[in-house]
Amino acid sequence: MVDTAQRSAPSAPATPSPAAPKPTGTFTPIPTINVPALSRQLLGSWPEIRIEARKLTARPELQGVPGLSMAEHRLRVLEQLRLLAVEGHVHRAFPVHLGGEDNHGGNIAGFEELVTADPSLQIKAGVQWGLFGSAVMHLGTRKHHDAYLPGIMSLATPGVFAMTETGHGSDVASIATTATYDAETQEFVVHTPFRAAWKDYLGNAANDGIAAVLFAQLITGGVNHGVHAFWMPLRDETGAFLPGVSGEDDGLKGGLNGIDNGRLAFDNVRIPRENLLNRYGDVAEDGTYSSAISSPGRRFFTMLGTLVQGRVSLDGAATQASAMALTIAVTYGSQRRQFTAGGEAEQVILDYQRHQRRLLPRIATTYAQTFAHDEFLVAFDKVFSGIADTDADRQDLETLAAALKPLSTWAALDTIQEAREACGGAGFLAENRLVGLRADLDVYATFEGDNTVLLQLVAKRLLTDFSRKFADAGSGVLARYVVQQATDRALHNTGLRTLGQAVADFGSTARSVGQLRETNVQRELLTDRVETMIRDIAGKLRPASKLSPQQSADVFNAHQDELIEAARAHGELLQWEAFTRAVEHTTDAGNKQVLTWLRDLFGLGLVEKHLAWYLINGRLSAQRAQSVTAYIDRIIARLRPFAQDLVDSFGYSPEHLRAKIASGAEQERQDEARDYYTALRASGNAPADEKAPRKK
Amino acid sequence: MVDTAQRSAPSAPATPSPAAPKPTGTFTPIPTINVPALSRQLLGSWPEIRIEARKLTARPELQGVPGLSMAEHRLRVLEQLRLLAVEGHVHRAFPVHLGGEDNHGGNIAGFEELVTADPSLQIKAGVQWGLFGSAVMHLGTRKHHDAYLPGIMSLATPGVFAMTETGHGSDVASIATTATYDAETQEFVVHTPFRAAWKDYLGNAANDGIAAVLFAQLITGGVNHGVHAFWMPLRDETGAFLPGVSGEDDGLKGGLNGIDNGRLAFDNVRIPRENLLNRYGDVAEDGTYSSAISSPGRRFFTMLGTLVQGRVSLDGAATQASAMALTIAVTYGSQRRQFTAGGEAEQVILDYQRHQRRLLPRIATTYAQTFAHDEFLVAFDKVFSGIADTDADRQDLETLAAALKPLSTWAALDTIQEAREACGGAGFLAENRLVGLRADLDVYATFEGDNTVLLQLVAKRLLTDFSRKFADAGSGVLARYVVQQATDRALHNTGLRTLGQAVADFGSTARSVGQLRETNVQRELLTDRVETMIRDIAGKLRPASKLSPQQSADVFNAHQDELIEAARAHGELLQWEAFTRAVEHTTDAGNKQVLTWLRDLFGLGLVEKHLAWYLINGRLSAQRAQSVTAYIDRIIARLRPFAQDLVDSFGYSPEHLRAKIASGAEQERQDEARDYYTALRASGNAPADEKAPRKK
Repeated sequence: MVDTAQRSAPSAPATPSPAAPKPTGTFTPIPTINVPALSRQLLGSWPEIRIEARKLTARPELQGVPGLSMAEHRLRVLEQLRLLAVEGHVHRAFPVHLGGEDNHGGNIAGFEELVTADPSLQIKAGVQWGLFGSAVMHLGTRKHHDAYLPGIMSLATPGVFAMTETGHGSDVASIATTATYDAETQEFVVHTPFRAAWKDYLGNAANDGIAAVLFAQLITGGVNHGVHAFWMPLRDETGAFLPGVSGEDDGLKGGLNGIDNGRLAFDNVRIPRENLLNRYGDVAEDGTYSSAISSPGRRFFTMLGTLVQGRVSLDGAATQASAMALTIAVTYGSQRRQFTAGGEAEQVILDYQRHQRRLLPRIATTYAQTFAHDEFLVAFDKVFSGIADTDADRQDLETLAAALKPLSTWAALDTIQEAREACGGAGFLAENRLVGLRADLDVYATFEGDNTVLLQLVAKRLLTDFSRKFADAGSGVLARYVVQQATDRALHNTGLRTLGQAVADFGSTARSVGQLRETNVQRELLTDRVETMIRDIAGKLRPASKLSPQQSADVFNAHQDELIEAARAHGELLQWEAFTRAVEHTTDAGNKQVLTWLRDLFGLGLVEKHLAWYLINGRLSAQRAQSVTAYIDRIIARLRPFAQDLVDSFGYSPEHLRAKIASGAEQERQDEARDYYTALRASGNAPADEKAPRKK
Repeated sequence: MVDTAQRSAPSAPATPSPAAPKPTGTFTPIPTINVPALSRQLLGSWPEIRIEARKLTARPELQGVPGLSMAEHRLRVLEQLRLLAVEGHVHRAFPVHLGGEDNHGGNIAGFEELVTADPSLQIKAGVQWGLFGSAVMHLGTRKHHDAYLPGIMSLATPGVFAMTETGHGSDVASIATTATYDAETQEFVVHTPFRAAWKDYLGNAANDGIAAVLFAQLITGGVNHGVHAFWMPLRDETGAFLPGVSGEDDGLKGGLNGIDNGRLAFDNVRIPRENLLNRYGDVAEDGTYSSAISSPGRRFFTMLGTLVQGRVSLDGAATQASAMALTIAVTYGSQRRQFTAGGEAEQVILDYQRHQRRLLPRIATTYAQTFAHDEFLVAFDKVFSGIADTDADRQDLETLAAALKPLSTWAALDTIQEAREACGGAGFLAENRLVGLRADLDVYATFEGDNTVLLQLVAKRLLTDFSRKFADAGSGVLARYVVQQATDRALHNTGLRTLGQAVADFGSTARSVGQLRETNVQRELLTDRVETMIRDIAGKLRPASKLSPQQSADVFNAHQDELIEAARAHGELLQWEAFTRAVEHTTDAGNKQVLTWLRDLFGLGLVEKHLAWYLINGRLSAQRAQSVTAYIDRIIARLRPFAQDLVDSFGYSPEHLRAKIASGAEQERQDEARDYYTALRASGNAPADEKAPRKK
């Protein structure tokens, strides 16, 4: 909530929470947050585009309306898409010569803001321009761009991104739809061989799509060249399926019901040879296949890699949804009162320790995600604008996407749910927005790459990086490396130094705490964990290289859980690093101080979450481990007075939040009740308590 | 799924999962599960009533239909309630002389099964017969029973349980609605003094309720005697509000939209003196107040205590929802294949370690909850049937409710969500049931007692129990007690004995593991944690007794998070104990073996979750702590072949599950795809791979 007039929990230094302890040891003056400066920092690298987008999402006609039927909601979102097409808000990534701006990062920045209007609008726009349109742009060539992009951009051609099949979601390489080249007629014959090969969960497929970018196994001359994309007409001008095309409606979903997801099947449908989107692979008239990328595997990953923007935008949108949920819950929690703690007046619920524990660490995580997302978006922009788009850059970008998207989409579900429970029964009402956000965001965890599968990709990359250091070397090198590491650490790092803590720390919690809030100590704790986990797993997997494929797979499988945990640790480290860089770049002194505490809360929260690991691996003594929780309690109490400013800095107006409980209504009710009792007592007509003497 | 013909993952001993390791150390023959015997055991103490209820919930006309509008859903559920009234399924708790059975435990057993038909049906039935009807029965006297219960039972009088107000949910004692006695007219004047005092979130209030049990501050002769319940007419025969009554619809909610929740307000509405439900407190014609319970506090808790059955039934219903979700996800996970792990065929996803880690521990938790719930229900029945209903019994029952309901309702949300994600995109479709269950169960975490507030009640009880041991004694006693404890433990318990582990365990993981699976070791680890946490907190809170109320509240607040964690640990211990007793009572040898593993998974899962605590407090050495995770991995692999039998034993038929992905459809698709490729290869027409030589 940007409107400061509606705030009831002043964060001015004169009124800190009663629970806020005095800083111990060193003198720390109580800072103030400069909300406009912090808001500006959170807007990231494309602030003007985000501000413009927020003007758009504040317009009622672009917003979701709870309680519409599925049919009504779908119609409304389709109409909203037409508005977006007219506004041009969604065209920034397209080529300049077609009316776009070739602005890839800015496009995503503006696009992900749509989540505040209605996640269905965001995702349906993403299907049309982000997936369907991008596939034509990145996998097609100039002739496809000129023929199809204008209609895609204007929404004259609503379309489908037909990749996933009922039988294969995460394993795209195994899709079963075939596109077999017939040199006689210079056509591809597109066919769905069995039920599991039906295309499924496709946005725009149930109703609106009149064409698709279809992914199928390209077969020519009796050879399967792997998955390629084709331009595939679906429906005629009356909306009826073309001959050979059939489909089904996926029907009601757990959320995102403004999108008409559906299934498609093809019965030997013929399309012209030119419909192959042939940027990375082509078929000549005579059926000869050619590609500039000789390795089928690399070709496949190159084609899929162009679609990374879906993951980028989900990372951003999930973070925004978390920010909105926290703004609602913190605003309500700062006004709502329940139970008299010790005095006469009922206590504001955000003054309860448990309530702070529920919300403040999630504010820290959302800040970490916001900063990490902006760096991610800058990296994405560099790759897609061609500033830095080597193979290595692209692989780094994909690893970043695979690490960050799972963390932020899971965190959104966790955060929105915690916010909903923190608002009690009021949180369960649709009018307070949280349940709708939660329902819509649910599928973010499994689409555009299932989170669990993505984290395995990260883990494999980490293992590859690790093993590259030992390529062309015998196993003796590994042993020497480990010794070397140990020596390095003893000299420079936190890792082994902490092993000596049991003695050094004894009796000195203050000194332990002092170390924990050092940036380098946090960095070492988090980095060391990732490195150690990967080294451990690599050691356990080494025998697998000598086994049969099945045995090798079994060994790998026996460590799958550890691998995923290591990948998660890596993603957390990336978020922490981005947060730390953001703190370093903060110029306002008050903001820098509060962000430092918030970063400490995030970093030490991660250490607390994984405390058993640090203890088992001798990185923290029991004494110091205990001080982690104690110090987190202190930071949280210290941050309490800044809670409202921290969420206000996300910059959402009442038009974005649209939650009655965050509108100031609760404060009005509290004031009215307080005034009533004050007047009643003054009137002398207040009833006595049955056991009045017991009451103080 | 009870229909064994539809199972694809046989759990026969001949075909264990490839991932299942050989038991090490001792020879353990592979057991088989006797599904009918296990099903019978899981049905608990009222098996016939549950079986009868499941016949009812298998009837389509009692089931929810996804995608109805809120208005349609409300109408449907109201009609379903009429069916239930005719069936008499919901009358078991009512007095025999009115056509009931005075069967309190059996009533809840049957009632909570309704969740499988539609949670809206369960909760709306709960409002009518469980809250509204029970309040008349338990807080009213014979004249109220005879006047009102017949209409309540037959649904001639749909009613509202009007307790919660917008301003006060958990803190019922602070509700602001007043009922002021007017001796002149022998009436109570019911009034809503301000907006926050509106009754809110009330089922049946928006449309259907024609009367309410209303909770208000009873004021007579200028004295407030605290919260009492009143019979309150709301609407006339046309459905219009009576004079002075007004209301609002709560509108769309995150789930349970078959229930018409709403708000009510009263403008000096007069009701006859006799409308006071006067079992625990009465007002004579002249306005004199009388009560058999002299303490207002005890009177208040006695009145509220009669309503514990809401929490009992939510504990059972949440457990059933978890069981259904797991049945769906395990059935799908046993048929669905994705990625080739090492061989030619794609791997069944439940053979992936991570997938097992996601689902099997949750099966263990759901079993623990099922057994704990049955014991809870038996205790409830004893109190309400009068077999064991001393004050102490009632307090124990309330503590049990406050400990178990939070754990099982939170676990339901976690489990259903994990099941939904484990089913990928298919899990997000309404046709597969999981998203609807999750949405409906959401509010179970905050209604009928907010989970966080309930756990604080548990913690306070534990602290009271602890301090009672030291009543009338100086502080020296506490110190002696601690020494005594230490001595006891050194002789008899696991607690301090484990402090010596670091040396004893070194190099011997096997021996560590051997100890961990001993029942007494698990019991000691879990019990010791609860005791130690409470002792620690009690020590920290002791200075508070000498402080001002505000200071004392601040000290308490500074440990709120620890208190809640201790209460949770207590609830987990109760579940573990119930599971252990159930294992002891299991007669079938195969079932007993598998349940023992499952109990170990539950118990050691708790130890793993709290591993940092055990390490910091010296209860586990780093060596043994590490073996906890390793042993859990082993138990999970060992349990994998029994996963389908374990969920089938929950006893739900396809009519209860109503999830397409758990109907065998996935298996059919897999078979069809496999047959297609087999035939294609046999035909000689299969396309070659572009890089065929690379393929094995």
